[in-house]
Amino acid sequence: VLREIAATLPRENIIYLGDTARVPYGIRSPETVTRYSFENTRFLLAHEIKMLVIACNTASAVSLEAVKRQFPLPIVGVLEPGARAAAAATKTGKIGVIGTEATIASGAYEKAIRRLAPGAEVHSRACPLFVSLAEEGWTDNDVAELVADKYLAPLRRAGIDTLVLGCTHYPLLKTVIGRSVGPEIRLIDSATETAREVKGVLEGLGQQGDGGKEGLRRYCVTDAPERFEKIGKRFLGDSRLCAEQVRVGGDAEVANAEFRGFR
Amino acid sequence: VLREIAATLPRENIIYLGDTARVPYGIRSPETVTRYSFENTRFLLAHEIKMLVIACNTASAVSLEAVKRQFPLPIVGVLEPGARAAAAATKTGKIGVIGTEATIASGAYEKAIRRLAPGAEVHSRACPLFVSLAEEGWTDNDVAELVADKYLAPLRRAGIDTLVLGCTHYPLLKTVIGRSVGPEIRLIDSATETAREVKGVLEGLGQQGDGGKEGLRRYCVTDAPERFEKIGKRFLGDSRLCAEQVRVGGDAEVANAEFRGFR
Repeated sequence: VLREIAATLPRENIIYLGDTARVPYGIRSPETVTRYSFENTRFLLAHEIKMLVIACNTASAVSLEAVKRQFPLPIVGVLEPGARAAAAATKTGKIGVIGTEATIASGAYEKAIRRLAPGAEVHSRACPLFVSLAEEGWTDNDVAELVADKYLAPLRRAGIDTLVLGCTHYPLLKTVIGRSVGPEIRLIDSATETAREVKGVLEGLGQQGDGGKEGLRRYCVTDAPERFEKIGKRFLGDSRLCAEQVRVGGDAEVANAEFRGFR
Repeated sequence: VLREIAATLPRENIIYLGDTARVPYGIRSPETVTRYSFENTRFLLAHEIKMLVIACNTASAVSLEAVKRQFPLPIVGVLEPGARAAAAATKTGKIGVIGTEATIASGAYEKAIRRLAPGAEVHSRACPLFVSLAEEGWTDNDVAELVADKYLAPLRRAGIDTLVLGCTHYPLLKTVIGRSVGPEIRLIDSATETAREVKGVLEGLGQQGDGGKEGLRRYCVTDAPERFEKIGKRFLGDSRLCAEQVRVGGDAEVANAEFRGFR
């Protein structure tokens, strides 16, 4: 999601928070994910952000509404943009959604798609192993193929014509997923759709970053940065990626408050 | 580990803490795992335990020594018992160890085995997908087989005669792992070894639970209990498993302090 937003809005300053000390969110309860989302939002607010993107399908699915009610700034999740693209893309009205256990259990995609296309038939499936495969770097080998076939066979049989990749890890497996469902099924990558939405919201508010210079990127993580940097290089295609460790939650906001944003 | 300890010491009261809001530990840095271990230990100490078992290979590998230095009670990890069993079992002196990224990166098994058998040749390999497979319940299907073959081929080629299952999830994949390495390789399950060690320590201290009645079991988890109960039933073979949610870390000890142990 970050890569797409940075490509779409190259002049914006972006502060990224990866809660690496507590991921994955996809196996947690809605209450715990919401608590983590609140803590993360408070951390980012202390850095004077003008807009928040919840760049995680699980957090978007279970906590977006609560975060919006609590914090007074423009907030975009990754779920709505994906749902909108799927509703626009489908011809048969049969849409597949894959995501984490928590995202699928929430039914949030189904609800969002049905709001836009009331007649749509939504087939959902949790694919928890996809996250581990992406992090292991096994994105296009025989294991990935076998796992994809196993998870996606029921969706293929259901006759979907559109498949939402409802977890930010899944686009790394796009090739294998595409091969498994076949070329006639349109894959929706919420990252691209979200970047478009972020641009639209900033334009609507007249809040786009100006000046001709390239935006700054700052990467914060809650665990030691080494593993994030290693995996992040693959995800972001940035070989010089460098992250710093921060704390969120509890009295951590105070500890981090010395840094002030670059808005 | 809990199942083995409960089977070995049926009359002991056991309080189990699963840090389900922050697992898996195997992808985290030593510093973060140690911080979590300290918080978990403080929670359990508030319940007046007489002995602590760190029933996680990652936490044992990176934090056991620090926890022992900090807290004055008998503490057993799962690593040392497994290392001892492996050193005793090997004939060729070639021992394989599989575990999480953090456990393998720590080199703790290698160090422990070498201390017992200085001439031993230790071949280690992180197998991160095994945890997801065990949690998904794919413990004996074609995916598990393919993943096991991929991870274990280098160990097989190295000519090991003993393989330590250095993560508490892996014994669930014992059948597939055993088939992949072949019947001539001895598998070491640290759970069984740890239970034996716990019994020995309690006997040594004269602290065994007495009375003829069955010990109490109490399950505490840091996330909502539903997912733990579902998976725990499979791991523990207890269909009536019932857990309660608690908080650890920060000022959580105070919040939980109303409960006093059953020592």
